[in-house]
Amino acid sequence: MKIKRPRGTRDFSPEEMRKRNFVKNRIEEIYKKFNYSEITIPTYEHLELFNLKSGDDIRDAMYVFRDKKGRELCLRPEATASVCRFFANELRNVQKPLKFYYYCPMFRYERPQKGRYREFFQSGIELIGPKNPGSDAEAITVAYRALKNLNLNFELEIGHLGILRGLLNDLGIAEEKQDELINAVDKKDIKVLENIVEHQIIFNILELKGDSKIIKKAENLLKDYPAAVLALCELKEILLLLDILGVGYVIDLGVARGLEYYTGMVFEIRVPELGAQCQIAGGGRYDKLIELFNGPKTPAVGFAYGFDRVIDAYELQGLEIPGTEVDFVITAVDYSVQKNALKIASKLRENFVVDFDLMNRKLGKVLDYADGLNAKFVIIVGPREFKENKVSVRNMKTKERKIVGIDELGNLI
Amino acid sequence: MKIKRPRGTRDFSPEEMRKRNFVKNRIEEIYKKFNYSEITIPTYEHLELFNLKSGDDIRDAMYVFRDKKGRELCLRPEATASVCRFFANELRNVQKPLKFYYYCPMFRYERPQKGRYREFFQSGIELIGPKNPGSDAEAITVAYRALKNLNLNFELEIGHLGILRGLLNDLGIAEEKQDELINAVDKKDIKVLENIVEHQIIFNILELKGDSKIIKKAENLLKDYPAAVLALCELKEILLLLDILGVGYVIDLGVARGLEYYTGMVFEIRVPELGAQCQIAGGGRYDKLIELFNGPKTPAVGFAYGFDRVIDAYELQGLEIPGTEVDFVITAVDYSVQKNALKIASKLRENFVVDFDLMNRKLGKVLDYADGLNAKFVIIVGPREFKENKVSVRNMKTKERKIVGIDELGNLI
Repeated sequence: MKIKRPRGTRDFSPEEMRKRNFVKNRIEEIYKKFNYSEITIPTYEHLELFNLKSGDDIRDAMYVFRDKKGRELCLRPEATASVCRFFANELRNVQKPLKFYYYCPMFRYERPQKGRYREFFQSGIELIGPKNPGSDAEAITVAYRALKNLNLNFELEIGHLGILRGLLNDLGIAEEKQDELINAVDKKDIKVLENIVEHQIIFNILELKGDSKIIKKAENLLKDYPAAVLALCELKEILLLLDILGVGYVIDLGVARGLEYYTGMVFEIRVPELGAQCQIAGGGRYDKLIELFNGPKTPAVGFAYGFDRVIDAYELQGLEIPGTEVDFVITAVDYSVQKNALKIASKLRENFVVDFDLMNRKLGKVLDYADGLNAKFVIIVGPREFKENKVSVRNMKTKERKIVGIDELGNLI
Repeated sequence: MKIKRPRGTRDFSPEEMRKRNFVKNRIEEIYKKFNYSEITIPTYEHLELFNLKSGDDIRDAMYVFRDKKGRELCLRPEATASVCRFFANELRNVQKPLKFYYYCPMFRYERPQKGRYREFFQSGIELIGPKNPGSDAEAITVAYRALKNLNLNFELEIGHLGILRGLLNDLGIAEEKQDELINAVDKKDIKVLENIVEHQIIFNILELKGDSKIIKKAENLLKDYPAAVLALCELKEILLLLDILGVGYVIDLGVARGLEYYTGMVFEIRVPELGAQCQIAGGGRYDKLIELFNGPKTPAVGFAYGFDRVIDAYELQGLEIPGTEVDFVITAVDYSVQKNALKIASKLRENFVVDFDLMNRKLGKVLDYADGLNAKFVIIVGPREFKENKVSVRNMKTKERKIVGIDELGNLI
């Protein structure tokens, strides 16, 4: 009976995992340099955790199920809500800041397409405790430097929801309508926007995108809206720090994010060559999510990479992936020395990657197999040489074959 | 609103992850030395994948749900069925052997207790292609050496289901009843066994446990049952190879395994101090699972660790976990040098793990924080020293403080 993999999920082969692990390690190298530590959260949560502030798109796409006691559970569609729950319930008394990173699959029931899967992977950080431009700048810098550590080309766009929220508050627009509006901005849904928005100034702000000159324009537009001006000042300070840190960016006051929990700075990273699914990272400040889960008022900022898209971008830009690393393939000429060959393998494995010919194949086939593994040497154990404590060794690169003492094998590498 | 973590799941803090990653890396180091490569399988599968040969215990404990199209899905309760599906559908033409390892959470709806969780982790290997004592011995050796690489004390018990199956076939017992019997053996359910088993010889075989002497006893008991004798010979050859490889074991013909897909050698590893949930690994040969999923007839062998129990055993035996590694914590004396301090941090992060004081705390608090992180040095950037391109550095071990040139900071590590 042929059983297929569920639609929108993937199996990853050794070749794919080598690529993914390489990229993951390069990213986490930077997380660690900034002293972020790994945490792990459950694969499923109580449904209400995500019902509160995830945004309609995510809520509609969740995998919901009941356990045998009838509790409503759901596969995690994102990590931030879980991290906040973890903090609120168990870590509230730990010395701040808390600096976490994670890597894990997320689940959303959407139509699978290029760059979009039902089981997809996110790598991200959460910085819990501080509320100041320095911590916003750190989160952005980590996101930026980890991708630079992969030599990727990308565009970083930074905005600030406090500007829009401040403006909407000053204009007297109710919070529910604000959420609807921000959602439409995130989707660039002009039709919905034109239906909701009555004030031209909102459009004028949303279309501001570019270098530091647009900050001046925004200041002029917003001068009568004090809450918006305050947020704009905060954004300016963040950008100043990023300039010092050598982080290149574009200011985009139309960055809105689909998740409803963001409260301040927001940013997105794009690789335009990826086409429709070109956003490879997103994040921002969420100062009210922890208290929503009954935790103490605690500000926080974070981001996540769409890891699968980072991989796509990395491949598209033709960057290098290291190969396999097999030092030795060992084979016995005949049964009389098979156990001796096994002993040699066992000893070499203390220090090297060693593959033993388990298929009992002829030498030609073993060499093919070793070629496929990209192995450095094939050790051929024969009864004659073995009597003299020696074996025959084939260098797979030069194709030279020579007799080597068993105790000298380690020196070949 | 306080939202709890679902029952039987866990959050893992940085301290716990450091321990888990250490143990995981030690195990995978051995997988890699034997040239096993990582793969990843989906978190959920079509239900029928596990309905075929998983055994009643697992079937009853699965998290089953439907997607929006009504397809029955289930969170994976174990990895081997998925790996076989992957092989049968996509890897059947790859050169053998295929040598895979994986690490991921599994899901079983059981009563949570010490060493038993609803979301638990398994680390394991699958060796697909060869069918010979050498490959059985390799799987066992990997399981053994990975735990030795952790300096763990444990008991390895090896049996062979071919002996029992051969005997039952020769006795004319139907396959369905065989499955029931083997299930009862796995659970050590004497009552059920006594109801099913009419032949005293079955009990006599099942209670054989000990060193190589019991092989002789089994040979005497089984001499009239040729299929069982054949399996016993295979077991003897496996054990001979393990002797050569220096793997210590106990023979136990009562090892049965709860999963229905095993066909030959089976083994389990126990750490008795763990109490009721003392089994930390299990595996064996499954030669018919791949064809069950419509793949070509392909023999295979593998095992999995109950990773959480390996962690428990590691802690119980008081083995060492490396600490955190923070090289520098950097703080600015006042706002005038904060941006300079940030620049120093940014530069040092090219090579070191650097934490920047994001909370703008007083020096005493920063030192407490650095102590908590177990940091090596605290760098205090003050306006006076900075003018001379210098900073004040506190060695957190010796508590000495001295003035160091900014370009010399890297030499401290």
